[in-house]
Amino acid sequence: MTSKIKIALDCMGGDDAPTMVVRGADLAIERQPDIFFHLVGNQEEIMPLIKASRHLDSNNHKIIHTQKKVAADDKPSVALRGGRDTSMRLAIDLVSDGSAHGVVSAGNTGALMAMSKLSLRMCPGIERPAIASFFPTLKGESCMLDLGANIECDANNLVQFAVMGEIFARIVLGLKNPSVGLLNVGSEEQKGHEELREAATTLRELSSVMKFMGFIEGDDITAGTVDVVVTDGFSGNVALKAAEGTAIMFTHFLRGAFQSTIFTKIGYFLCKSVIRQLRERMDPRRYNGAVFLGLNGIAVKSHGGTDSEGFANAIGVAADMARYGFLEKVRNELGVLHDQDGK
Amino acid sequence: MTSKIKIALDCMGGDDAPTMVVRGADLAIERQPDIFFHLVGNQEEIMPLIKASRHLDSNNHKIIHTQKKVAADDKPSVALRGGRDTSMRLAIDLVSDGSAHGVVSAGNTGALMAMSKLSLRMCPGIERPAIASFFPTLKGESCMLDLGANIECDANNLVQFAVMGEIFARIVLGLKNPSVGLLNVGSEEQKGHEELREAATTLRELSSVMKFMGFIEGDDITAGTVDVVVTDGFSGNVALKAAEGTAIMFTHFLRGAFQSTIFTKIGYFLCKSVIRQLRERMDPRRYNGAVFLGLNGIAVKSHGGTDSEGFANAIGVAADMARYGFLEKVRNELGVLHDQDGK
Repeated sequence: MTSKIKIALDCMGGDDAPTMVVRGADLAIERQPDIFFHLVGNQEEIMPLIKASRHLDSNNHKIIHTQKKVAADDKPSVALRGGRDTSMRLAIDLVSDGSAHGVVSAGNTGALMAMSKLSLRMCPGIERPAIASFFPTLKGESCMLDLGANIECDANNLVQFAVMGEIFARIVLGLKNPSVGLLNVGSEEQKGHEELREAATTLRELSSVMKFMGFIEGDDITAGTVDVVVTDGFSGNVALKAAEGTAIMFTHFLRGAFQSTIFTKIGYFLCKSVIRQLRERMDPRRYNGAVFLGLNGIAVKSHGGTDSEGFANAIGVAADMARYGFLEKVRNELGVLHDQDGK
Repeated sequence: MTSKIKIALDCMGGDDAPTMVVRGADLAIERQPDIFFHLVGNQEEIMPLIKASRHLDSNNHKIIHTQKKVAADDKPSVALRGGRDTSMRLAIDLVSDGSAHGVVSAGNTGALMAMSKLSLRMCPGIERPAIASFFPTLKGESCMLDLGANIECDANNLVQFAVMGEIFARIVLGLKNPSVGLLNVGSEEQKGHEELREAATTLRELSSVMKFMGFIEGDDITAGTVDVVVTDGFSGNVALKAAEGTAIMFTHFLRGAFQSTIFTKIGYFLCKSVIRQLRERMDPRRYNGAVFLGLNGIAVKSHGGTDSEGFANAIGVAADMARYGFLEKVRNELGVLHDQDGK
């Protein structure tokens, strides 16, 4: 029991909660039987879902009952003040009091970030949290941070994001020596904001511990030029959403193209299975789980509109981070950094 | 002759210059016979191309001979110092001395911007130039600025970009009352950088002259939520390239999908014509022509790798801006702005 990975789930956050949360937990247990869940939410709603599950039993879960929840449109400040007994807050508190390794919620992002910062506090040596996620590229998968936690970042913040992102890529993407790039408007050394150039100088000095590739541009993100894209939360958010919007437009135009004549409809019929594969490859559910890095605990935000498959993936990310010691690795690497500073 | 739209062409800039430049001019004359060209470049290379053209004759062009050109990898500072007799600089100078309404070049972007700023100077009332371009959306076409001329912008810069972008959309997209949005990381009023909130406050006060829609997010760009997307050059560049990269990835995956089995190959054969239409719809050549707005003259940058079709489109943009009085409109609107300020 002690070797179990303990994950607290906010059962009341997300459009289809608690159904997809409990079903997601069921799926996750099937894939990683060493997980133990703290299911936080309304017992009356959760119990029947557990009964209907295939793998959830008294050995792998415990219910923490509450009827209160954070609403999707609550302001973070409101949730902070009045949300002490909500399923989201109680789930986070299980991480800060050591009962769980990590928390997963599909609820209100702003509230989750605000409560996590307050309850978990920052990881020593990290000044600001960053939102990280991964996405498909021409070469496989990459991860990017920050996706919107900080609209402005100084050079130190960016260096810390690079350190955390690199460890995240090692654990979640299973890469031995992930490459790291700083998002800029050109690859030349003199390009971009002062803080970017300063961060690049520091990261170049860390070449013994990190494969830093210098500056990259927006089109390098999906090209897979680097495994970890480091940027401030404004640019990261804009880049991510611009890419999502383009994918939506492309899919829309393609659907229209297939519908245009009887020939294209037959053509579509013949291509259906590979188009489905393509869709799966780009499936946001596979890339579900934006992770808050930099806090003194593991907190994963699942999309509000996710289903049990997507929620199980988000749980998988949190469990992997706990299993492979994400926080310990960050603390160690920062130690190395500070030792180098001291020289 | 006096009513002709006079465009100076840098015949030596771009991968396939001067061939695609002269052929592009030929195509442009076919579409808009009221254009007169100043063809700046090596006479010996240009002459045979003119002879082979269908529409270029002594009534619609004049050659300005020079053998010097700006190299694709010249630093802007080098081009500025040593580039006085280059085809690019001579073409720009034809605009500043009043011989031409606008200049089009497919050469070195940095050099074109630096030389245009020096030779044309700023449009009175505009503090900084912006790079604008247009792109496909779910609803049709939109334009965005700044795409990389300024990595940092204050609120005044953004307001001026909004004014210029709105006029640009009226002329080039043919819209009567284009809507304008400020790119941000959320649509709520309190979101984003200080300068964005300040710019939004000013733009809201201009509702009598401009359809300002407030803040938009990265996925609104291709959704076509607004006709004019206003942003600083860093975010604009990142958004544009992230979108381009996503389109490239999508096309690549789709090509792979069609090649996977004999059925999908037949399917592709049946869908070929609509896929081609789709590709044309997303064709960068249609969207060729990044325009430098804010200078006291019209300067259009064509992609370096463009062909004659793309170059003709870039000429079309410059000619339309001259024909419909882009600069006069900007000066008038800024007058209205300043009158409102005075109240």
